[in-house]
Amino acid sequence: MSSPRQLNLNAFIYPGGHHEAAWRHPDSQPGRIYDVAYYQEIGRTAEAAKLDAVFFADGPALRTNVEHNAGSGLEPITLLTAIATATTHLGLIATASTTYYEPYNLARLFSTLDHISGGRAGWNIVTTGTDLAAANFGLAEHPSHAERYARAREFVDAVVALWDSWEDDAIVLDQAAGIYADPDKIHPIDFVGEYLKVRGPFNAPRTPQGYPVLVQAGASNDGRAFAGKYAEAIFTAHQRLEDAQAFYSDIKAKARQFGRDADHIKILPGISPFIADTEAGAKKLEREFNELTVPEYGLKQLEGIAGKSLRHLALDEPVPVELFSDAGDVTDNARSRLQVVAGIVQRERPTVRGLLHRLAGARGHRVFAGTPEQVADTIEEWFRSGAADGFNIMPPYYPGGLEVFAETVVPILQQRGLFRTEYTGTTLRDHFGLPRPESQFARRPALAQ
Amino acid sequence: MSSPRQLNLNAFIYPGGHHEAAWRHPDSQPGRIYDVAYYQEIGRTAEAAKLDAVFFADGPALRTNVEHNAGSGLEPITLLTAIATATTHLGLIATASTTYYEPYNLARLFSTLDHISGGRAGWNIVTTGTDLAAANFGLAEHPSHAERYARAREFVDAVVALWDSWEDDAIVLDQAAGIYADPDKIHPIDFVGEYLKVRGPFNAPRTPQGYPVLVQAGASNDGRAFAGKYAEAIFTAHQRLEDAQAFYSDIKAKARQFGRDADHIKILPGISPFIADTEAGAKKLEREFNELTVPEYGLKQLEGIAGKSLRHLALDEPVPVELFSDAGDVTDNARSRLQVVAGIVQRERPTVRGLLHRLAGARGHRVFAGTPEQVADTIEEWFRSGAADGFNIMPPYYPGGLEVFAETVVPILQQRGLFRTEYTGTTLRDHFGLPRPESQFARRPALAQ
Ligand SMILES: Cc1cc2nc3c(=O)[nH]c(=O)nc-3n(C[C@H](O)[C@H](O)[C@H](O)COP(=O)(O)O)c2cc1C
Ligand SMILES: Cc1cc2nc3c(=O)[nH]c(=O)nc-3n(C[C@H](O)[C@H](O)[C@H](O)COP(=O)(O)O)c2cc1C
Repeated sequence: MSSPRQLNLNAFIYPGGHHEAAWRHPDSQPGRIYDVAYYQEIGRTAEAAKLDAVFFADGPALRTNVEHNAGSGLEPITLLTAIATATTHLGLIATASTTYYEPYNLARLFSTLDHISGGRAGWNIVTTGTDLAAANFGLAEHPSHAERYARAREFVDAVVALWDSWEDDAIVLDQAAGIYADPDKIHPIDFVGEYLKVRGPFNAPRTPQGYPVLVQAGASNDGRAFAGKYAEAIFTAHQRLEDAQAFYSDIKAKARQFGRDADHIKILPGISPFIADTEAGAKKLEREFNELTVPEYGLKQLEGIAGKSLRHLALDEPVPVELFSDAGDVTDNARSRLQVVAGIVQRERPTVRGLLHRLAGARGHRVFAGTPEQVADTIEEWFRSGAADGFNIMPPYYPGGLEVFAETVVPILQQRGLFRTEYTGTTLRDHFGLPRPESQFARRPALAQ
Repeated sequence: MSSPRQLNLNAFIYPGGHHEAAWRHPDSQPGRIYDVAYYQEIGRTAEAAKLDAVFFADGPALRTNVEHNAGSGLEPITLLTAIATATTHLGLIATASTTYYEPYNLARLFSTLDHISGGRAGWNIVTTGTDLAAANFGLAEHPSHAERYARAREFVDAVVALWDSWEDDAIVLDQAAGIYADPDKIHPIDFVGEYLKVRGPFNAPRTPQGYPVLVQAGASNDGRAFAGKYAEAIFTAHQRLEDAQAFYSDIKAKARQFGRDADHIKILPGISPFIADTEAGAKKLEREFNELTVPEYGLKQLEGIAGKSLRHLALDEPVPVELFSDAGDVTDNARSRLQVVAGIVQRERPTVRGLLHRLAGARGHRVFAGTPEQVADTIEEWFRSGAADGFNIMPPYYPGGLEVFAETVVPILQQRGLFRTEYTGTTLRDHFGLPRPESQFARRPALAQ
């Protein structure tokens, strides 16, 4: 008898919490966001709840609007290494940019994280959302969306080839004969693309997982095509079940078109849960957070998404629908976020303040306020109706918001047989039910070194 | 009464040990070089002995000659993060290349290590010795020595400016008023050089040490000038006291020329000690290791240094002196190593096998076989005679070679009042007696963000 299909659940760590005003709330701990013990504690909480992984976003630029918002900027692979040493099973997923890194350097960081953690690393592949990064890397402008994805494809091909370049049995370790490694099992990759050239071989052996899990988080057409080909898990943002279902079947179909097993690409929408004993209590908690927002901050963020000045808007007037009806002069990388906002405006006709509150929760991800049962119900509904293989949990505040999810929602999902009560494997691939890939060089004739 | 001048001692970690045949010796543990616990144990041994720091070399390419040699290739900043979580005081120094990294990315990695470790990070700045790296980064060739150092100067200027870009008091954390940070205390760096352009600001606050300790390890004229200007510690290779003295006074003079306090640049030659109860026992141990070398390996390494084929040489004939008398067609980055080899050949007139054994110990660094007293004596002699402020300890084999140093030599140095018996501070700057730098922006008028 095979076990029933299981949810995958990640904790998306965001310094003070995902709600933009979390750092002002007494239940958050913004004074600890540069303290490694804070992240290690969060990791232990996630592991005690048997979550699949923790996940960090990232971008190589200072976020705008720093005056009213607590953010860390700490480099996530390093941070995950520290969490790795405080845990034993928890998956460790870091976002990193194919636009602003060199493949050899990034391959080494993730490979080392996979070695150190005994096979728990995942890479959330992004092309970088923020234009601000360009000037930190000597570029006059952020490369176009199409160019970024073209480079991303080459980048992933090169990095995976590097990770594959030592066959699994390349290390011989024959002390008597003086043979450490078999050079015939270590391959130059000779990657030549339009954007990247990488000769290899890599300078370290294959990792416990073969290579880290490839995760992706872009929703544009290019992003989806990329995901269909490469991604083993996708983080995505949907407000409504029907949108999530459409996305889910689109991605699974794309994966099949690439000849892949659709079960080997896990689709994980974000959900930011406010949880209390009663629904009214949960909604009150959400309001409490929303009331701590600084409208000046939210408006600036919204201007970034809209690509136009919004300073003239009155907070308690309805949002003019036409403001978000065209893509205007928005940068192409904000387009998928703009669509989320346009959808909210058209469906809900909120006031400006109302829209700011809607977005304050999790930057366009779905916010849900309810009892533990209600949170479990919506998770189960999406899971059973072809909208999700699991979720990226985005607690509005840390660490408490993860603790309450772990203590109240996870046990319900476990009772329903939807979520593991013990880890059944030791690697992130095990948790996600993904196969360990064979090296692409394993069956090729040996190359001279 | 001020305390007497104290030695600085680092443990230079090399996977199986610094002796090239260490991995074949029963006292080494080559099967553990991809196991993080191995490195954490070494870190704990170093910390129990109150050493200043552990140190990793690095290069973004597979070493040649991998068949007969155990090397890790693990990324050192990640590895040091894991060691950071297993220790509380030990300094953590990683080598990283200014030629093959982007300043913003590297600044983030070291900044995060300094945050995570509570101020224990150091950066060994190199321009990368191996030509092989170029092809891993899409370059047709390794940039010239002069170009590499020109870029290195810009790189360090940019990285330090990034680290300084948040003044120490930029975080306000006023929850009631909704002010997280003071934007007037966060500065763009607007760095524009010939090789690099970096706008900034950095995306994380200043670190416990202000910024990581700047270490350097190049011995050419360009390297020394660079060190005189930037380095707060220098790793260096000398076979003889008089060479070390000449280097020491040259560097201290250069630092003074740059208007610096010469005490704020610590000069740390390498020493690879074989230690036993008797001198004869120590020399026997050294022979035991040398007899495990694979001559084919050593010859290939030597060809790399010499820049010519040496395959015709008979192992038990004397090395022809003229072979190393000119710099030949050697690449400029091997030149300082070639000089070390030429010196050995001229002074000692060894056989080919003898030379290979001389170099097998620590790649041109000084190998010393003796009793604990004798090791302590030579350390004290160099320390008191203007040749060294301390040492980079390079155990021939790990972990045992560090353990015996920690257990037998360190107590002697402590009894002589030359080395601390307890840490007197918590940061690497504290251990090295270096001041915490003020942000270069602290006294400038605020810039608009
Ligand atoms: C859950 C989630 C997390 C994301 N994290 C990041 C991130 O950390 N850094 C980033 O640059 N983009 C991030 N993105 C944005 C996308 O990955 C992508 O860069 C952007 O949306 C442009 O791609 P697209 O046009 O294909 O959507 C994230 C998206 C999602 C859904
Ligand atoms: C103790 C020590 C460690 C070194 N470690 C590295 C290293 O890890 N990576 C590297 O590329 N070069 C390393 N070097 C070499 C130099 O830093 C430098 O790259 C090379 O010697 C060229 O510079 P130079 O011509 O100024 O000597 C090391 C040198 C010494 C003395």
